[in-house]
Amino acid sequence: MATSPIGAGRPKTRGIVLNLIRAARTISRIELATRSGLTPATITQVVRELMEHGLVVEVGRGASTGGKPPTLLQLNPLARYAVGVLVERNTCVIVVVDLTGRQVARTAFPGTALMPPDQALPLLASRVNALLGTAGVDRDRVLGVGLATYGPQDRRAGVLLTHAPTAEWFEYPIAPRLSAVLGLPVLLDNDAAAAAFGEHWLGAVEPRTYGCLYMASGIGGGVVVDGEVYRGRSSNGVAIGHITVDPDGRACDCGNYGCLELYAGPHAVIEYAMAADGLGQRLGLDPAGVDVMGQFRRVATAASAGDPAAKRLIERSARHLGTAAVTMTSLFDLDLIVLAGPSFAVAAAIYQSVIEAEVQRRTFSRRAHPMRVVTSVSGSDAAAVGGAVLVLQSELACLELG
Amino acid sequence: MATSPIGAGRPKTRGIVLNLIRAARTISRIELATRSGLTPATITQVVRELMEHGLVVEVGRGASTGGKPPTLLQLNPLARYAVGVLVERNTCVIVVVDLTGRQVARTAFPGTALMPPDQALPLLASRVNALLGTAGVDRDRVLGVGLATYGPQDRRAGVLLTHAPTAEWFEYPIAPRLSAVLGLPVLLDNDAAAAAFGEHWLGAVEPRTYGCLYMASGIGGGVVVDGEVYRGRSSNGVAIGHITVDPDGRACDCGNYGCLELYAGPHAVIEYAMAADGLGQRLGLDPAGVDVMGQFRRVATAASAGDPAAKRLIERSARHLGTAAVTMTSLFDLDLIVLAGPSFAVAAAIYQSVIEAEVQRRTFSRRAHPMRVVTSVSGSDAAAVGGAVLVLQSELACLELG
Repeated sequence: MATSPIGAGRPKTRGIVLNLIRAARTISRIELATRSGLTPATITQVVRELMEHGLVVEVGRGASTGGKPPTLLQLNPLARYAVGVLVERNTCVIVVVDLTGRQVARTAFPGTALMPPDQALPLLASRVNALLGTAGVDRDRVLGVGLATYGPQDRRAGVLLTHAPTAEWFEYPIAPRLSAVLGLPVLLDNDAAAAAFGEHWLGAVEPRTYGCLYMASGIGGGVVVDGEVYRGRSSNGVAIGHITVDPDGRACDCGNYGCLELYAGPHAVIEYAMAADGLGQRLGLDPAGVDVMGQFRRVATAASAGDPAAKRLIERSARHLGTAAVTMTSLFDLDLIVLAGPSFAVAAAIYQSVIEAEVQRRTFSRRAHPMRVVTSVSGSDAAAVGGAVLVLQSELACLELG
Repeated sequence: MATSPIGAGRPKTRGIVLNLIRAARTISRIELATRSGLTPATITQVVRELMEHGLVVEVGRGASTGGKPPTLLQLNPLARYAVGVLVERNTCVIVVVDLTGRQVARTAFPGTALMPPDQALPLLASRVNALLGTAGVDRDRVLGVGLATYGPQDRRAGVLLTHAPTAEWFEYPIAPRLSAVLGLPVLLDNDAAAAAFGEHWLGAVEPRTYGCLYMASGIGGGVVVDGEVYRGRSSNGVAIGHITVDPDGRACDCGNYGCLELYAGPHAVIEYAMAADGLGQRLGLDPAGVDVMGQFRRVATAASAGDPAAKRLIERSARHLGTAAVTMTSLFDLDLIVLAGPSFAVAAAIYQSVIEAEVQRRTFSRRAHPMRVVTSVSGSDAAAVGGAVLVLQSELACLELG
């Protein structure tokens, strides 16, 4: 429905126009009117306003459709920024992205999750501030911080609902506290959901409905439906790491049993490697060691280099993930799964080919559409980048101009 | 956003008003304006039009809020009808519902799916016509037919994509052909999706996001998100009967292996009963017999009556369904599962209590919200009623008035 120019200055109208410019990369005013359903007069007014505030710039002329070639618009990447923070058990990653979602700064350091919150938060905040300083980003241009982490959470309240890794984090209001320390809005979200969303927003995947398998030290999932994160009742969905793959399996910390994570995750692979003849010793593994991801990387590296024993273990992990991926594609009716997160990075080719073969062969809806599995464009940083991009989406949708 | 009276006669505006009246059962014009965001003038005009066409009637006055008590409106149940047809392997059910979704006529007869389509369709059509005749429903008032059935399908084209039960049904354009024979619009949909949708539309469940486990001779699932059926890429989602519950399990006809249906479905229960000491003989079962549902009903009846051997088998089926239900609640983040379809009808109490215990104990998001399992208000007929109700939703959303 066309909206009168009276509504032009409304934050939501601005959000619609900004999102269309972002998705198109470059676009003319006429095309903006066509795609938005807004009147040319409204578009002219909104674009003028966005240009005055430096959010949109003119970048030359497009192809003529008869008359004068239309002027093309694009986002000014340096007009606004967002920060993404991934809090993992053993690692933190912080990224700064510009208005188009492009990464302009990054840092990673050993995890804060094993510290009590009162110690972890000031450390996280100082790292965010330091990164913004290094990147030379004006704080006034930072829209906010997207905090991506695992486990059940109350996303709206910004509160963690997990006892892992320590009991002190349970019911901890991490988002409001970090926001108070930083003086910036903080959005809490699931790491896998963030990773999933980033993929589409950055233009890496074509269909607007797809799933994401996310593997770091644990395993998570995210689903994007028609360009938006699938939320369910409480934004705690797609908990693919905690579905039962072995009905006779052992109890998991999550309360379920026989969970995927216990069979396919980095910790399981290290345990299998210790049990495999000589492999654990050969790779210098220690299942009691803190650096789970580093040890897993050694197995994945050996597998990629062709070590038969290591390859068998990664393939076994991949087959379990393949079965879970089939459950995901059959339940959500997906035709695309993106593999994201640091634990898919090293042996990506093995994981991609095994999981793709399983979903192509076993998915219920495979006769209705072809099935594909791809690796994330953001790789190991997918959750941090996704966290930052979720801030862009949320803040641009109803941007207030000063 | 308020719409000007110029748009009052638009089919979509009418659809919004009709749906609000339906959901509220009785409602005043003022309340309609508040809930729709439309102007009082638009509401007055749309309601006048709907009353002139007999779709809406005045039914007395509500409570005063100061001035004259407002006149209440409700749908005229007899103004329009919809037909729901469930095609199962061994059974067909046809229902006629009025504009409010209330069942006004029903018939059931042995299934047509084992016949070739050219024989089955005229039979189905004649049964629909006979039922409309018996119920005294004027064909001009029938909005259409909702055809609910299992298996992968191309919902938009109305084409089946399953080889079961016979190869002749694969790629058969069942909806357009039945529509041509009947002279009525025919909507094809998944049986479990239809059953899920009917539950909310009929006002039986409060939350607008929930799941449905549907069990007839096979097992299916449906999810409703914010009042709409979850569709995914091709409306073939929530195929819960065909997710792997045993990774070492045998191949299923669907192409996957170790599928839930092979462990928890009626056929599996009959097989287990034959293997159990004397139970199969005692209940007169025959695994090669055609009437799977009838035989399963005998086991379920014995279990409900307290037969320990039969009860063990139904509980075993329920535990497998419980594990699958946990996968569904953990992936879709649901707090409510509805059990629907004929195979839950007899031993409903056993299934409900076992499945509820599993989802309460094992769902990933259980700390974020309580979890419940209930039985469908439409019971065995849920898919047929849901098929009819999907027609009401679809046709009322953009109703053309003559």
